[in-house]
Amino acid sequence: MQAQAIDTATQALEVANNGLFTANNTWMLVSTALVFIMHLGFAALESGFVQQKNVVNILFKNCMIVAIGLLSYYAVGFNLMYPGGDPGAYFGFAGFGLTMPEGAAGLIGYAGGAYTYWTDFIFQAMFAATCCTIVSGAVAERIKLGPFLIFCVLFVTISYPITGMWKWGAGWLDAMGFYDFAGSTLVHSVGGWGALAGIILLGPRAGKYTRNGIKPIPGHSMPLAAIGVFLLWFGWFGFNGGSVLSGDPGLVSLVFVTTSMAAAAGAIGAFVVSYVMFKYYDLSMVLNGILGGLVGITAGADLMSPGEAIMIGLIAGAIIPMSVVFFDKMKLDDPVGATSVHLVCGIFGTLAVAIWGDKAGMGQLVTQLTGIVAIGVFTFTFAFLVFFILKATVGIRVDEEEEARGLDIAEHEMQAYKM
Amino acid sequence: MQAQAIDTATQALEVANNGLFTANNTWMLVSTALVFIMHLGFAALESGFVQQKNVVNILFKNCMIVAIGLLSYYAVGFNLMYPGGDPGAYFGFAGFGLTMPEGAAGLIGYAGGAYTYWTDFIFQAMFAATCCTIVSGAVAERIKLGPFLIFCVLFVTISYPITGMWKWGAGWLDAMGFYDFAGSTLVHSVGGWGALAGIILLGPRAGKYTRNGIKPIPGHSMPLAAIGVFLLWFGWFGFNGGSVLSGDPGLVSLVFVTTSMAAAAGAIGAFVVSYVMFKYYDLSMVLNGILGGLVGITAGADLMSPGEAIMIGLIAGAIIPMSVVFFDKMKLDDPVGATSVHLVCGIFGTLAVAIWGDKAGMGQLVTQLTGIVAIGVFTFTFAFLVFFILKATVGIRVDEEEEARGLDIAEHEMQAYKM
Amino acid sequence: MQAQAIDTATQALEVANNGLFTANNTWMLVSTALVFIMHLGFAALESGFVQQKNVVNILFKNCMIVAIGLLSYYAVGFNLMYPGGDPGAYFGFAGFGLTMPEGAAGLIGYAGGAYTYWTDFIFQAMFAATCCTIVSGAVAERIKLGPFLIFCVLFVTISYPITGMWKWGAGWLDAMGFYDFAGSTLVHSVGGWGALAGIILLGPRAGKYTRNGIKPIPGHSMPLAAIGVFLLWFGWFGFNGGSVLSGDPGLVSLVFVTTSMAAAAGAIGAFVVSYVMFKYYDLSMVLNGILGGLVGITAGADLMSPGEAIMIGLIAGAIIPMSVVFFDKMKLDDPVGATSVHLVCGIFGTLAVAIWGDKAGMGQLVTQLTGIVAIGVFTFTFAFLVFFILKATVGIRVDEEEEARGLDIAEHEMQAYKM
Repeated sequence: MQAQAIDTATQALEVANNGLFTANNTWMLVSTALVFIMHLGFAALESGFVQQKNVVNILFKNCMIVAIGLLSYYAVGFNLMYPGGDPGAYFGFAGFGLTMPEGAAGLIGYAGGAYTYWTDFIFQAMFAATCCTIVSGAVAERIKLGPFLIFCVLFVTISYPITGMWKWGAGWLDAMGFYDFAGSTLVHSVGGWGALAGIILLGPRAGKYTRNGIKPIPGHSMPLAAIGVFLLWFGWFGFNGGSVLSGDPGLVSLVFVTTSMAAAAGAIGAFVVSYVMFKYYDLSMVLNGILGGLVGITAGADLMSPGEAIMIGLIAGAIIPMSVVFFDKMKLDDPVGATSVHLVCGIFGTLAVAIWGDKAGMGQLVTQLTGIVAIGVFTFTFAFLVFFILKATVGIRVDEEEEARGLDIAEHEMQAYKM
Repeated sequence: MQAQAIDTATQALEVANNGLFTANNTWMLVSTALVFIMHLGFAALESGFVQQKNVVNILFKNCMIVAIGLLSYYAVGFNLMYPGGDPGAYFGFAGFGLTMPEGAAGLIGYAGGAYTYWTDFIFQAMFAATCCTIVSGAVAERIKLGPFLIFCVLFVTISYPITGMWKWGAGWLDAMGFYDFAGSTLVHSVGGWGALAGIILLGPRAGKYTRNGIKPIPGHSMPLAAIGVFLLWFGWFGFNGGSVLSGDPGLVSLVFVTTSMAAAAGAIGAFVVSYVMFKYYDLSMVLNGILGGLVGITAGADLMSPGEAIMIGLIAGAIIPMSVVFFDKMKLDDPVGATSVHLVCGIFGTLAVAIWGDKAGMGQLVTQLTGIVAIGVFTFTFAFLVFFILKATVGIRVDEEEEARGLDIAEHEMQAYKM
Repeated sequence: MQAQAIDTATQALEVANNGLFTANNTWMLVSTALVFIMHLGFAALESGFVQQKNVVNILFKNCMIVAIGLLSYYAVGFNLMYPGGDPGAYFGFAGFGLTMPEGAAGLIGYAGGAYTYWTDFIFQAMFAATCCTIVSGAVAERIKLGPFLIFCVLFVTISYPITGMWKWGAGWLDAMGFYDFAGSTLVHSVGGWGALAGIILLGPRAGKYTRNGIKPIPGHSMPLAAIGVFLLWFGWFGFNGGSVLSGDPGLVSLVFVTTSMAAAAGAIGAFVVSYVMFKYYDLSMVLNGILGGLVGITAGADLMSPGEAIMIGLIAGAIIPMSVVFFDKMKLDDPVGATSVHLVCGIFGTLAVAIWGDKAGMGQLVTQLTGIVAIGVFTFTFAFLVFFILKATVGIRVDEEEEARGLDIAEHEMQAYKM
């Protein structure tokens, strides 16, 4: 009877471990699918915000970015971002390609038993391409396709994983106490810095900044842009919710609440401020306000109360119309507002960790600033150099006539619509 | 060895409880994300079914509705709908804002251990905004944005949670035995009654009902409408499937089957009846037939066999073309058919609980009718009063010239497309 | 104390079994929802690739196909595909309709305890309609709606389940060792053979193949097509991931990796080969290249390493532009490239199981060929006969004037857009 008790107990423990493992891993894989669909969100948002003549081009870029992101993260990025070895490092590399550690080591021995090696890779790989997608929107309507794809390969293979390792790979920023839950800095501001480097070197679209002032160049389809924003919010449940790195009920559900509250408040913040500034109801500001709220909460989505998340979302949303106007005043032409959403709100969200929530404090503020500046300097320099060399050699901008005709005809011999 | 057996058994039980809890909670959060994407479904459906000149307006409204719904449900609605206290009540309020009960009470002590307090809130909050979205489609193309948003705040903060409490908050209808699994009445007919009040007070769109008969005003994009319907069906797996309030394999899988069968049969019902009535294959009727089937099964999705679900879906789908023609004869102008889908099929679905399935019976029919009427009277009165006061004060309808030019230019200084 | 140990252990085992069962079943239901959304993917892809005048028609067909697929699989298909009885059979039928085995037999006694009877049905039912959807794209822009729907009923009720049984219903191909993990042959090539039969009997669209060569007839909306492809990839996580038939962490996560790698490589393969062939960046080839990679990996998604998945995806993607050109040379007019994607890459993917991965070998190659040929001959013959009889009786092609005006006006008295 004793033996029976032990047998049953042992069997129960095995099944129980397996059940918990399966539940956790399932959540991580659902999150992976949700992060994947953000790429459709970006594709829809960006193609909605550009002119009709450049739609095929932006769709093409977004397809290629996902492909390049996944393959280069497979070949190099994953092992550059998670090199193992001593914590606190600046750089490391565990070799090319992937091999799942044999047996239990790659399964339940991996990541404290919450998910498998393959799950870890594919969840992280879906994130990796995001930083390029952010750039793609900002440089739209005038960049040459070939050089842009070269930039993407280098950015996602080298730059993103190195700065990512500093925090998520247990590098020096992590050792210092820098906090970035799901990537306000590591993903969004990285994309934003790349975007900024690109638009500085590219210059504005022809006819945007004229002697008679700033000419608005409206996007060709608001329904597409709205589809994009809703899909991004949908995907963000996986982006933030999956960053818990398990299905932990308390944490994942809190993250769902803070993420949703911040997005909702972002809409309100952008709504009010844009109405005060422009005196009409500006859909594109509300759409970007939602995204601003989402980017803003991303660094501390697991640390905030719902009320704090609302505060962060309101401010991030309010920032959007002001930031968009500011970049236009600086003659930095960003057709989709990517720098405002991802760079400015990414920085704000990273600082918010030191202002509200469990980690608030002066010391944390200094640490957060250190991380923002270090990653900003590295990323901007890297992106600027790559774009600069490409500009000096093959050129990065289509010629005037091609820009006027649109990239769809010039590069793809195809039109987005036959209506 | 005895001690070892007890230790192992105790540990196994703890892990097992945690695994089951994680699996249940994960399903509820996946359901939350699925219900969220229904808001994109509504946005796409409604913008597809309106004229091109009002598309930005409908997208703007749908963004704001989600934001308002989530924030007001956070501030007031959740505690109005689930006040705790004595069962069988008519009204209760547990105070403003949210606080997760500390420790296990908000986690495994909550809701019988199936999900956390935060999960409960965010799943319910995603439902709340739905009732406003239903109204938004019916009053489209002529309502003023500002007053409509005021209506939404009041409707979702006060009206929806009070009637919701009557059943789901263990109120008097629940005590009486009224059954509404996932909200044919509590969500869909509530939205439908609000819509009906709105369209009565607003009047039809200019040029809809003329001396020479009823003029069809076709929607501007059938692909958008179709995207909306497929996304709504997709989201309904969470709407109905999550209403099991756990990941219970038998119940959730039955709900998937009945929901899908009813939607499929709704398409067939609308297909046949609309072909008989109009002699051509009417896409908008089939799209609304799918939605009618989904609304119809919602009250009893956990009670029906697949065969019964098909019967309910067939009838709900068949109702759609007849109901759309009926409302037009009554000169109640509803651009998207929201009253037919959500009000008429919502009532039918609630009655279906007493006709088919485990609870069928004459006594149940009386109870179901009581719930339908009580919630109908309360909601219609509330919505009518709010719209009436808004009409008498700030006005609820745009002026003729604005309606003719379209709300996009009039209220948003923006066009949906630049083609 | 012994009794206590046994009680605790027994209780723990029960909870643990329930937790694992819930986690597994939840994953299967999430997969079901993901496979469902593939129908929106197909609807968007196909409507994007057809001309504006036939968009309502293709959307209508895709709505009806889902409805017909689910209902006929409920009525007949499921019991034809999984008849039970002796393994190794050629045919079997377990009767009309569905009844969940009572109690535990339909729950934890079913399918080794990984999911319920209802889950099994609804997951398989979502697959069933897919084969018709594939046909729908290929025969678009010229087929009559009524006869096409009759074809669908017969194809999904009879043909698909019979050949499906040969492998997944433990039939003779399964007994022989034929391997098709998630349906490169059983689903995709089956749809492709049906498509081929249809386009042979229908003939090309008017004006496609002229004395002066092949006239490209571009699709009307590239954003719609791109939305379709991203949604298909998204849904494929459930199509392949759910085909593990449990939430097994190691296998499901490997399938996520191989599926994603093959899709990404498919984009690259199509990109390179189409650029070499046409000297511009062809978006429609890259979109179909992604789908080709997905179809190619489907037969062996659980057998391949990530590197092997990349190889398979690269080749499948590279096949696409060559195959599209080949079918055009044969004057087999397929507006969306369904035969290239689903038939050619489906065959390639099935052969790939014998070339790479755990089952590679000469014997396996013969077995794979046997399965491909047997299912191909049966399906093509069935589809050809059905279309032939329909052609000889009611006719399958709209008349010239209707084709010129477009099916939307001719069959639906409706236009897809009012812009």
